[in-house]
Amino acid sequence: MTINKNTKFLIVGLGLLGGSYARGLTEKGYYVEAITKNQEDCEYALQHEMVKKCSTEPDEEMIKNAEVIIFALYPDTFIRWIEEHGDKINPGTVITDVTGVKGCIVDKIQTMLPPMVEFISAHPMAGKEVYGIKNSDERIFYGANYLVVPTKRNTSEGIEACKRIGEILGFGRISEISPEGHDEMIGFVSQLTHFIAVSLMNCYEHERLERYTADSFRDLTRIANINETMWSELFMLNKKALLEQIELFEKNFTQLHECLKNDDREGMMEMMRISTKRRKQFDK
Amino acid sequence: MTINKNTKFLIVGLGLLGGSYARGLTEKGYYVEAITKNQEDCEYALQHEMVKKCSTEPDEEMIKNAEVIIFALYPDTFIRWIEEHGDKINPGTVITDVTGVKGCIVDKIQTMLPPMVEFISAHPMAGKEVYGIKNSDERIFYGANYLVVPTKRNTSEGIEACKRIGEILGFGRISEISPEGHDEMIGFVSQLTHFIAVSLMNCYEHERLERYTADSFRDLTRIANINETMWSELFMLNKKALLEQIELFEKNFTQLHECLKNDDREGMMEMMRISTKRRKQFDK
Repeated sequence: MTINKNTKFLIVGLGLLGGSYARGLTEKGYYVEAITKNQEDCEYALQHEMVKKCSTEPDEEMIKNAEVIIFALYPDTFIRWIEEHGDKINPGTVITDVTGVKGCIVDKIQTMLPPMVEFISAHPMAGKEVYGIKNSDERIFYGANYLVVPTKRNTSEGIEACKRIGEILGFGRISEISPEGHDEMIGFVSQLTHFIAVSLMNCYEHERLERYTADSFRDLTRIANINETMWSELFMLNKKALLEQIELFEKNFTQLHECLKNDDREGMMEMMRISTKRRKQFDK
Repeated sequence: MTINKNTKFLIVGLGLLGGSYARGLTEKGYYVEAITKNQEDCEYALQHEMVKKCSTEPDEEMIKNAEVIIFALYPDTFIRWIEEHGDKINPGTVITDVTGVKGCIVDKIQTMLPPMVEFISAHPMAGKEVYGIKNSDERIFYGANYLVVPTKRNTSEGIEACKRIGEILGFGRISEISPEGHDEMIGFVSQLTHFIAVSLMNCYEHERLERYTADSFRDLTRIANINETMWSELFMLNKKALLEQIELFEKNFTQLHECLKNDDREGMMEMMRISTKRRKQFDK
């Protein structure tokens, strides 16, 4: 299937990300329906003209009607949904997702789906520290990174359709990566950073901490304001890759710690020169 | 001494912070002179009307003429300057600084100064990842935290004068803290965070890292672009307090690491609830 102006989208799960997808696609003139379990979220989406139709039930007609289905659910809920309702999806439909872990999801979903239904996984690298449809905002995607995570089961058509969604939503860099490569990178750039921020905020119960704080601490701990249900699930689902990244960080942190302990100023400066050089590449 | 519209300021060291002090004080209508070792910086400051007079030498007349002297030098340079030129400072002068460590500085400087010259230490909690007078900008102070770090040798007049400088420059919260309290807090909120960012950037030589990066990683590593000479000096000068903060962080990080290893999801969620609660207090 090729995405064109008449393509019918169904979004399952109107949270922060699902809601932002709905807003973005609708704003660009696409036809969008949604299924979400909460009645209030359904009404909110309709009132704000984010979708044309919304149901709190896995409405068979809506599922059959869709040409592209975007799942914006927690990983376990996504798998359960496909188990229970996957057989209602029309042959020829392309389905995609926003899930933050891939190794434990992509292969599983691909083998569960009926024949001729293609699941091409994606990870929009954008978010907020707040949750729910009321905080959804299509602008979080503008210029952000978008990862397409194909396996050998995917077709070039499916991959193109998935990339097209990223383009429509205004993402900046759109890249392909394998599920294993994804989980390793995400373990490092996203999960490890949340791990560090949570650990930092657990160090002190200091009522006046904010009086002494500069931007660096504020920036580092912004993500310590965290949805514990979602993130603990993501951590568990990516346990193996995350543990490797944690150990890699501990090794480097310990090396700097040892330099300080042993008054090895040159060793510290060398690590700082490396970090400066690498970090500068980000700002190019 | 009490600061009024006619108070004569001398700034020693026109780098990012010294330059921003010069801009801020001049803009508010105060009389500012400066001493800085680099001829080019001197000319820049005069051309941009940041100061009325500038010298690359420790000009005796300028030093005698000043009622408030602000030192914006590296810690070691600051101590050497006072050793060599401290005797030129007029009785009745108030001197202050911007140094990022206090325990090893404040007492030393206070005992070195001639009688009747009061050193009241300050730490403006503001900065940038770029350096030098050309990046100076008085707006970095607006709304930021400003710490006044008195000892028992300071007078209430001196403390008030130091706070007044913070007010003039537009800082937000102005607090008092002891040198020991300062170094503990700074070890945590500032030095430890730089320590973490440097360690993170040392983990990977990944050319395409930026393709997979979300804001969280960008925010956490912004400060990994670091002046290695200044920060390694600050780390060494605050070694004892910083090592304690490093060990406290390692303890909490290891606790979260153990939860993940042992599939203790509830333990992870509890640490996340704590981090969320504490981080939310910052955004109030």
